[in-house]
Parts: sequence; structure tokens; C-alpha cells
Amino acid sequence: MSNKEFIKSIKGGICAVGDVKAAGIRNGKYGLALILSENSYVAGTFTSNKITAAPVDYTKNTIKDGKISLIVANSGNANCFTGEEGIEDCKNIVDLSSQLLKIPTDKIATASTGVIGRKMPMDIISPLIRKCSQNLENSMKASQDAAKAIMTTDTVYKECAVQVTLKNNNIVKIGGICKGTGMIDPNMATMLCFIATDGKIKSESLKESLKIAIEDSFNMLSVDGDESTNDTVLFLANGKSKNEVIASNGEIDENFQEGLNYLCKDLAKQMASDGEGATKFLEVKVIGANNKEDARNVAKSVVNSSLVKTAIFGEDPNWGRIVAAIGYSKAKINPKDISIAISSGEDIVDLVKDGDILAYDGTSNLKNAENLMKNREIEIIIDLKQGFNSATAYGCDLSYDYVKINAEYTT
Amino acid sequence: MSNKEFIKSIKGGICAVGDVKAAGIRNGKYGLALILSENSYVAGTFTSNKITAAPVDYTKNTIKDGKISLIVANSGNANCFTGEEGIEDCKNIVDLSSQLLKIPTDKIATASTGVIGRKMPMDIISPLIRKCSQNLENSMKASQDAAKAIMTTDTVYKECAVQVTLKNNNIVKIGGICKGTGMIDPNMATMLCFIATDGKIKSESLKESLKIAIEDSFNMLSVDGDESTNDTVLFLANGKSKNEVIASNGEIDENFQEGLNYLCKDLAKQMASDGEGATKFLEVKVIGANNKEDARNVAKSVVNSSLVKTAIFGEDPNWGRIVAAIGYSKAKINPKDISIAISSGEDIVDLVKDGDILAYDGTSNLKNAENLMKNREIEIIIDLKQGFNSATAYGCDLSYDYVKINAEYTT
Repeated sequence: MSNKEFIKSIKGGICAVGDVKAAGIRNGKYGLALILSENSYVAGTFTSNKITAAPVDYTKNTIKDGKISLIVANSGNANCFTGEEGIEDCKNIVDLSSQLLKIPTDKIATASTGVIGRKMPMDIISPLIRKCSQNLENSMKASQDAAKAIMTTDTVYKECAVQVTLKNNNIVKIGGICKGTGMIDPNMATMLCFIATDGKIKSESLKESLKIAIEDSFNMLSVDGDESTNDTVLFLANGKSKNEVIASNGEIDENFQEGLNYLCKDLAKQMASDGEGATKFLEVKVIGANNKEDARNVAKSVVNSSLVKTAIFGEDPNWGRIVAAIGYSKAKINPKDISIAISSGEDIVDLVKDGDILAYDGTSNLKNAENLMKNREIEIIIDLKQGFNSATAYGCDLSYDYVKINAEYTT
Repeated sequence: MSNKEFIKSIKGGICAVGDVKAAGIRNGKYGLALILSENSYVAGTFTSNKITAAPVDYTKNTIKDGKISLIVANSGNANCFTGEEGIEDCKNIVDLSSQLLKIPTDKIATASTGVIGRKMPMDIISPLIRKCSQNLENSMKASQDAAKAIMTTDTVYKECAVQVTLKNNNIVKIGGICKGTGMIDPNMATMLCFIATDGKIKSESLKESLKIAIEDSFNMLSVDGDESTNDTVLFLANGKSKNEVIASNGEIDENFQEGLNYLCKDLAKQMASDGEGATKFLEVKVIGANNKEDARNVAKSVVNSSLVKTAIFGEDPNWGRIVAAIGYSKAKINPKDISIAISSGEDIVDLVKDGDILAYDGTSNLKNAENLMKNREIEIIIDLKQGFNSATAYGCDLSYDYVKINAEYTT
């Protein structure tokens, strides 16, 4: 999958990583997943929404001392805007898991996804924890069960794993599972993502590595521009491979970082592709930006435009809407310098070249563009010609089914 | 309509104003409107998109010297991203109108709305200008024809007129027409709006007055978060009433300002109500904000949330999504201070009070809220309890038809 020879895709999701056990179970719209990676260093990233769910507040505090052993994640209820009772329910979940699995409460993180502003149905969640705790194992199926248990409006479970050959030729593994389809905006998404590695790397470096990987993956993902209250990414390192990820100069091994970047981008693409109601996967690549921030701005502006998204759904190469979205981004642009192409697989068609439209009625460019738009995966390439910075954003089209799903997915 | 006794709704749209003549005609998806108000002071406000249509650039320049006599506006083609040729087409439109109506070219403004990135079909537009120039008159029908001619995906034409009794008991009239349904975001919309008054008021004061009125009307309007390249508001004052709008202290007459505010809000509401695919009109009122900017931020964040909008379409009083949108706005908030109610007509139902949810399953609040959501006009009232500032934003729901309209409305 990767074009870097030191990154090799492997199977097994989060359980591809040595000594990581998982389990997952569902009861109707509710699901519960356990991920056990004993005595692991941990790094976490959370939503920047000012209203945060109880498990976000709870887990931010738990991971402060840098090590955890267990993640308990549920779907169906976000445990958000639930006041003191919400925090109590986090504690109840942790206490029960602690008793069942003999793990200290301060080594257990929680995460939730689902409806906001409803009490946690502990009468449903507690039995799921009990059942799950009996099924923990290190297997492909266990990773899948966990990935399935955290799904809400997701139509497919999402996992990825890679084997990375470090600079010193040692091998480490990184594996992850995630969920996320709606209430997804740049700066994380309604997403839960759990990643593990058997590399030896302590919390501070782990944090730094995760921050880098998130920047060009989850932070460049948009389904609907709504930012969630529950976004949580947890990255665990149990060191079981005994292979040190930090080079002697204190830097993170470059190959490890590339491997993690690859994994996070792959998961981000899976989420975009499964965006609520999505019929098409959309990748917006901006090159020639004056600075990195401008590149990101333009890519996010285009990927998030309702009018671009409905045009993609309608299989319409509507460069006018792309141009409008470039214009209302915050980036430095010059209309006369803009070039726009669309691409799918090996095919590429120029729509705009240095501010001139190449796809007017009757041109072969328009015909080719219209044909290309019938594909499921569409890439929009924008060259701003203002500098040498680039960024890519991931999203999907806006279809009838997005409206249907979100009009019917009730409080 | 207004609860201020010095503002009286009158009929006739832009032609309610003395000596303003209008005309409008359509040919399929193309329309042309003329508005003649000879030797009028003018103020203009335009899109803040960095990519601006040719008529925006052209008209910004034309109105610099403060007076115009004629507006030529077309629908069907936005004349945007059309390079030098686009500016030439503006000149062609102005030259032809100048010849036909014996008005100097430097007293003619233009505006366009429609598809972006296509050449202006001058072979269609020119004959429309010729026909229109023979039909100019001061009548209710002429104002309607002009309002109809600038429609794109609008389903109804939009006009408003008021008679204002000034502080000194003199009477002036203000009338306007507008169009706008999609590519509408705070900071103006894909909207064209033409307003006229017979009050005596020069350009500088006219600009100031327009700026104030726009702030709480068109700048608080959102249909889809996409900001257009063509937004244009022009405000003409021909002074034909001979009544001075500027008091002896140099200030704008308060009642005149209130009248203009009322008119702009009324037009903004008409646009929100006719938003593409809208089945419901949505008003989001924020009170108790720490400052005015925070109030606006929260109101726009909620009115623009795809998830709130689809919930409104689904008639679901989904406070969780409202809470999430409050949280990702830039405003200072405290979750424990937030109260949320929904209202329609005389009815009001509390959903959240000081951070506590009042509409859990089985409560009469939830039942009442669900009933209220069946109405066409829904108001969401949010009290942040951080200060004493308020703002209201206008929008609509997100329906299947928004997707349909924008998937099928082709380049």
C-alpha cells in the first residue's frame, strides 16, 4: 500500500501489535469495546470544542501521569452535557472494569460516542462490560469486534496496521481502529481512534509523534463542518518489541514517524470514504501555497463547501464553486494564478489553467471531466502559484442520504 | 408589521419610492432587471470573497464618485472568473444601456448572479436589455418584474417597502427588492439587493446607514455556509421627497435608520425562508453573551450547523447538536450557564436550563418540544448568561431538496 519500502501493511488492526488484547460487543444501537495493553505509555488528543463530554474530561485527567493499561469505549451515548452524573457514570464504568480485570482505576481510560445530552444507560452498558471482559484476546477477530462495537452511523468498521523497519533495521508494529462518519470537521472529528505500538517510546515523544501524524490526517478530515464534543485519539506504546523508537540523539525515528503518518492518513481516508451518506470519496490537494497554513485553509475550505460537495454528488465538474470556495478561504491568492485539475486513478483533466477556464461547453476537457466525475474517488488538485507549500484534505460528497441519516437519527 | 409606530409597511417594492422606475424580463434561465433612479446618491456593499465577479469590480469603481442613475442586473450567469472578457462584457452592457436610455456610462452600475466561470451570453442578454429599456415605469408591477428577473433558484420574488415618519414628522419612503437562496453565508450572501429612498441623504451618510442595517440583517443570514463571489447591495437616495434625513447635528435620523434596519431584516428573513430546499425558517436568538461578537458567533455557528439544520428538517428538538455548535463557536461560554428554549409563534418550550436538560425522555417538555417542531417557523433561543449582549441569525433547514437543487444545478 505505502510507497515507502520500510512501511509494510499488515493485518490484525490494533491486535497486530504484540500483547494488545481487544474485545467488542453490541446490543442494538449500543456497543462496548475494551482494549488492553498493559502498562503502556500513552498520548491523547481531544476535541477542541469548548463543550466536552464527560469521558473526555475524565480521560484527560487519567492520562496525565503518562501510563494506562485499558481503554473502555462505548457507542450509542456520548455521555456529553450530562453534568456531575456524567462524570459519576465514567467512574462507574472504570470501577466495574477495574474489578473485573484487576486493573487499577487510575490506569483505565474511557471514551464515548453517540447521542449528546442524554443520560448514560448504565443498565445496558454495565452488562456489556461484564460480557466483554470475558472475551479479551489478541486476534484479528478481537480487533474487528472492538472496531465494530464503536460504530454509530458507520457502515463499515475501520482498522489499519503497519510494520515499520526502523533506521537501525529493528522492526516495530503500529495498529489502530477508529470510528467516525458525521459531526466531522477539521480539527478532529466525531471520531474515536485507538492506536497501539510495540515500539519503546515514552509519553513525551509519543505525544510529539502523535501530534505530527494528526496534523495531516485527522485534522484535514471533514464530513459536515460540525465539530464534535467527544473526539478522542489515544496512542499506546507497550514497548513489547523491546525496540527503541528514539534514536541516540533523542529524535523520533523517521521511519516510525512515517509509519504512524501513513496509518493515521489511511484511517482518515477510511472515515471520509464512509462519511454519512457518502457516495464518493473526495481528496483536495493544494500546491503552490504561500505557506502551510494557506495550503490547509484552501484545502479545508473546498472540501467542506456544501456546494462543491453537492456538485460532486451530482457528478458535475463545477469549477465555479471550487473557485468560490478558494476565494472565501483565508489564504493569499491571485485569481489569475489559479490552476485547477480533477483526477481519478490514472486520469487527470485540466479545468482551469492560470486563471483561464479550459472546460467551456463543447470542449473535450469538459467531456473528459464529466466522464471522470462518474468515478467513486475524486481528487481536486489546486495550484495557487504563490509559493511552495502543499496540503491535502479528505472528505466526501453531500447526498440525500446525509440528510436522511441526520434527519432521522434522533435525540 | 413593525412594532415601531413610525414605521409603516407599504406596497410597491422598490417602486414605492417616488421617481424610481423599474422593469424586468426573463428568457428561460436568464433574466434582466433595470432600476432607474436618476441622479441618486449611492452606497454599495459587496462580497468579501477574494474572488470577485467582473460586475463587482466594475461597479465598485463606478460608484466611487457617489452618484448613479441606473442599475442593470442580470441572472443566469454570474460573469465571474471570466477575466478581461468579463470586464468587457460589463462595459458592453453599460454601453448598450447608456445608448438606449441616454444615461452617461459612468452613472450606470451592474450586478450579476448565476453560474460562475462561464462566459456571459451577450447574444441573450443584449436583447433583454433592449426590451427592458422600453418598459421602465413606476408601478407595483414593474418592481415585481424586476424582482422576478433577478431570481435564480429563488421560488418567490422578494420585496419590501416602508414609509418612515422622521423625528421632525416629515415622511420618507424606503423600498427594496432582492434575490438569494443558496451560496449564502454570514458576511453577505449570494444575494443581490437594491434599495432606494426618496429621503435627502448624501453618499457618506448613506454608506454609514447601510453599514449599520446590514450588520444585523444580511450579515446574519446563512443558508449553506458558502460565500458568493457576486454579493451586491446598492442603496440609492434620490432626494425626491425633499425631506432631509440628516438632523442638524449631522446625525442620521434615528427613525430613518430603524426603518432601513427593519427593511433589511425583512428581506433577510424572506431570503432565509426561501433558502434552497427549505421547508422551515429558522431564527437563532442568542442573549446573555459577553460581547456582541460572541453573540453573533454563537448565533451563526448554530444557524449554520448542518446537523442542527437536518434535525430541524427532521422536526427533532435536538439540543445535543445545538450544544455542540455552541461549543465550537469562538465565543466565551460556560456549559453550566447555558439555557436553551425553542419557540414558535406564542409557544415556547425550555430544553436546557442552566446546563440541566429539561427535556429527557418521558417529560412533557420533550413532548411539547416535538409538537412545536412541526411548525414552519422555529426560533431557537440561547441564553449564555455571560453578559448582556444579544444577536439573531436567520437561516433554514437542510432538506433533500437542497441536495437535489445543488446536485442538478449544473455548471
